[in-house]
Amino acid sequence: MEGPRGIYAPVATIFDSEGGLDLPRFQSNLNFYASSDLDGVVILGSNGESALLETDEKLRLIEAGAQAIGGRRKGMAGVGLESTRATIELGKRAAARVADPFLADATAYRNHYEAVADASPVPILIYVMAAYTGVDLASSLVVQLSAHPNIVGVKDSGGNAPKVAEMIAGAAPGFSVLAGSANFLYPALCLGATGGIVALGNIAPGQCKEIQRRFEAGDHDGARELQFKLLAPNAVVTSKYGIAGLKTALEAVGLEGGEPRSPLRPLTETEAEDVRKTLNEAGIGRVR
Amino acid sequence: MEGPRGIYAPVATIFDSEGGLDLPRFQSNLNFYASSDLDGVVILGSNGESALLETDEKLRLIEAGAQAIGGRRKGMAGVGLESTRATIELGKRAAARVADPFLADATAYRNHYEAVADASPVPILIYVMAAYTGVDLASSLVVQLSAHPNIVGVKDSGGNAPKVAEMIAGAAPGFSVLAGSANFLYPALCLGATGGIVALGNIAPGQCKEIQRRFEAGDHDGARELQFKLLAPNAVVTSKYGIAGLKTALEAVGLEGGEPRSPLRPLTETEAEDVRKTLNEAGIGRVR
Amino acid sequence: MEGPRGIYAPVATIFDSEGGLDLPRFQSNLNFYASSDLDGVVILGSNGESALLETDEKLRLIEAGAQAIGGRRKGMAGVGLESTRATIELGKRAAARVADPFLADATAYRNHYEAVADASPVPILIYVMAAYTGVDLASSLVVQLSAHPNIVGVKDSGGNAPKVAEMIAGAAPGFSVLAGSANFLYPALCLGATGGIVALGNIAPGQCKEIQRRFEAGDHDGARELQFKLLAPNAVVTSKYGIAGLKTALEAVGLEGGEPRSPLRPLTETEAEDVRKTLNEAGIGRVR
Amino acid sequence: MEGPRGIYAPVATIFDSEGGLDLPRFQSNLNFYASSDLDGVVILGSNGESALLETDEKLRLIEAGAQAIGGRRKGMAGVGLESTRATIELGKRAAARVADPFLADATAYRNHYEAVADASPVPILIYVMAAYTGVDLASSLVVQLSAHPNIVGVKDSGGNAPKVAEMIAGAAPGFSVLAGSANFLYPALCLGATGGIVALGNIAPGQCKEIQRRFEAGDHDGARELQFKLLAPNAVVTSKYGIAGLKTALEAVGLEGGEPRSPLRPLTETEAEDVRKTLNEAGIGRVR
Repeated sequence: MEGPRGIYAPVATIFDSEGGLDLPRFQSNLNFYASSDLDGVVILGSNGESALLETDEKLRLIEAGAQAIGGRRKGMAGVGLESTRATIELGKRAAARVADPFLADATAYRNHYEAVADASPVPILIYVMAAYTGVDLASSLVVQLSAHPNIVGVKDSGGNAPKVAEMIAGAAPGFSVLAGSANFLYPALCLGATGGIVALGNIAPGQCKEIQRRFEAGDHDGARELQFKLLAPNAVVTSKYGIAGLKTALEAVGLEGGEPRSPLRPLTETEAEDVRKTLNEAGIGRVR
Repeated sequence: MEGPRGIYAPVATIFDSEGGLDLPRFQSNLNFYASSDLDGVVILGSNGESALLETDEKLRLIEAGAQAIGGRRKGMAGVGLESTRATIELGKRAAARVADPFLADATAYRNHYEAVADASPVPILIYVMAAYTGVDLASSLVVQLSAHPNIVGVKDSGGNAPKVAEMIAGAAPGFSVLAGSANFLYPALCLGATGGIVALGNIAPGQCKEIQRRFEAGDHDGARELQFKLLAPNAVVTSKYGIAGLKTALEAVGLEGGEPRSPLRPLTETEAEDVRKTLNEAGIGRVR
Repeated sequence: MEGPRGIYAPVATIFDSEGGLDLPRFQSNLNFYASSDLDGVVILGSNGESALLETDEKLRLIEAGAQAIGGRRKGMAGVGLESTRATIELGKRAAARVADPFLADATAYRNHYEAVADASPVPILIYVMAAYTGVDLASSLVVQLSAHPNIVGVKDSGGNAPKVAEMIAGAAPGFSVLAGSANFLYPALCLGATGGIVALGNIAPGQCKEIQRRFEAGDHDGARELQFKLLAPNAVVTSKYGIAGLKTALEAVGLEGGEPRSPLRPLTETEAEDVRKTLNEAGIGRVR
Repeated sequence: MEGPRGIYAPVATIFDSEGGLDLPRFQSNLNFYASSDLDGVVILGSNGESALLETDEKLRLIEAGAQAIGGRRKGMAGVGLESTRATIELGKRAAARVADPFLADATAYRNHYEAVADASPVPILIYVMAAYTGVDLASSLVVQLSAHPNIVGVKDSGGNAPKVAEMIAGAAPGFSVLAGSANFLYPALCLGATGGIVALGNIAPGQCKEIQRRFEAGDHDGARELQFKLLAPNAVVTSKYGIAGLKTALEAVGLEGGEPRSPLRPLTETEAEDVRKTLNEAGIGRVR
């Protein structure tokens, strides 16, 4: 069983002006991604405001997303919850809608991941989001989990190079390690990562994929140069401004954005201008 | 509007052997608490495994708990969720079942608490659980929130004495600060706390209440002596063994316990023996 | 062997305009303290910029300080260094100059404290400064160290009420626990602390001592009221502005202050004005 | 002004059985390094137990080290102290003994580094040791400091790939970024690091240099393979066992080791056996 490869965007969830799901605008973005340079999308990933959604909203998003993608790209769905039994239940329902591996969220308990993997009809990818959850899986635990036949990979967002090296060096054959942020995509590929699930892929799919293409062509200087160029735009859609920054950037490149769900707050106009200026300086323009 | 006073137990949620809610055994515990030294109970507080429960399970627990208490003691219910709109919705549904203040959970966003308080038909108590959520509300933010007419208090679990002092010194009149762990109940009372919401209250309601009685009678030496005696038993039902430790202790004193929900794990037999030995040495015996 | 009791000021080191020691101005402050409400002073404590001083400067400070105090108040001297052998050497040289217990600084190694205590001709007080060193001694380690006949107490700056309770409840008879900041002096006394080593004692010795007097007289309401009043002035001479804030405050009350040693920086004029305004609002005026 | 390039070992300080400096055995190690694959050595770097040494010991070590190297390899010396004036003074005295850049230690104050660089007769390399000091320089501060004509590089030990990328992308031309641990040497080189100052270089100079050789020859697969092989031996001489582990490993490969200075403790025999077994499994044998 081979784990995922290539560049995935963890897509934003789109809300209407009352704060409810806006599935048509959500599908509009996914329709664009399905004809972009991306290899796939992740619904309900780290940028999907999962913790702010009800279970039935999650299922509607997964269904609407799978329909919009229409098999043109890979599709994963985040099903991680704190409770093992609830994760298993959501996972089974999601697996009926997406054909590809779905995601288990982060706790520090090995038995959680193994129980979910045992029960899941489709393979599991571990999704480490220490910055959101305060939990960081040790590389030794990831290595142990890689031996499970139904756990096919991990997305790591921390960017700690020794940890990435330890996971790749120790994992079972075929297990994928994916960069969880575009700001270390190139060095992760050097270490043997098979790709990335990167927020920046939402607004600059071509540039993110180009890093991987250059790396695979042996053009290390070119890959590094592009990596450096993407540091500032990556920051404004992740650590600097969070999901509100990503949504502002989505609108700046011609995609659907809108406001995050409360208690998250939209950017101020000054912050939004900083986002647009940063994208502009990095040559990230309209994609549609 | 006066905030809560006295000793509350944040009660454990009880599961059956399949991991589902066991409402009769849950009600059995609450029926005991309603005739104990406790002033009240908190359903779905920090020991209630809230994050592992579905929304409909939460409502069933609140309803069953309110029924068992039958107005004999105060009752609060935890309704905090990460999403503001979901918190408001759950809060409204809970308020139809418990007459007293319910709880808003911890995020760092002032607008979250104010929006929930604006919408709630009953008063709000802020519940700071930094150890669980990674978020710790600054005392200055608590002071600001104390001015809201529908926010009547805060439960703080950190035990930082200067922070407790800052909150009490700065808060609006009538605002309650409650100790969130029995290991600093006495010094919190000295600083002006109106009581505590303490896990130890689940298994030693009489001793916890006795600290407050001695304090109010001016018996500082006696209160301090009992405070010291409760340090070790408090640790085994909180920081040392978590919810599994609390459930083992519940069984040791003759109440309903059982296992926590996965991925939480029950204690090993060696750990359980440590719990029982610690209670025994502190003179905490069967309550029923 | 009884540990220290009462209110101590960890005195500031005073520099001349070239950044060298200014012993006459340093002695001028100590001469004032020797006739103040303070029970004693601590030279080279947490506010003494110890890490910025050479060994020979430390010895000159201790000698000058002991001379100025002239036996009128208790005197301790900080001799903690990272190396055990260097700590022992400095300790022996300091013990020839101050008659009272000297201080061992914080590492996490039990053998360090025991080796220093074994070698010291005078008793040792453990000085926990987690905020400066990143090391916090567990209460269980302090309890173990309290059994050493030449270790007579600990100063704890963290303000965590359960930790203070654990240390006092577990320590050997006669072992002193001292509050390391004035913002939890009153609750620490309630728990059985024998006093405090508090930066605020440098500028408000009378008010700090008054908290202890009221506590000992059973005037809990009065002690708490004064505790609350001192929270804001305590912050500007500790957490908010550090040593530069303390030195500004020293000048505001008529004592010697000046600038800290580089890389520490003096306050801006706006910050200094905040310090003076805060003291003024708390009724802390000129002491000389 | 070009910063340093290549592989440097931050050499261990060697003590005699009384805990004093053992300069002949120290020089014996350096004499070996001067004919090894290393490009240079760093005296009083992160493995040199600097914080446990007196100033005069530091100068004697620098002098003895420079003499042993005899110009055959590059030599740097650590002169960072918490006080700016003391750092400047030590730096000037060290610069009379080593011809190459010396090191400024970590505080968070930009003015500290700039004042030291202004005063230094030889160039400065910034040495970030967050794990030891609790201070981590932001990449933006390093970028600012890179503009100073007398600051030629930085050694970063954290291994955070995005931070390494930000420093290299933003720094002034000629500024060197060096990996501070061998567990991310290869990805750091991919990002444009000019080399490393790595503890593992003390015991496996050939293998560490070989990573750089393969990288420079475009043999990325070979570099990555060797990187993976060195992860376990790197851990036992750094994060797992600290300086005591390094000293045990030095003896295992035929160099001088001995015990660290108190309060650091030597390894137990079980730990020492783990070190030897790990080196053996990685094919790291006697170098002399």
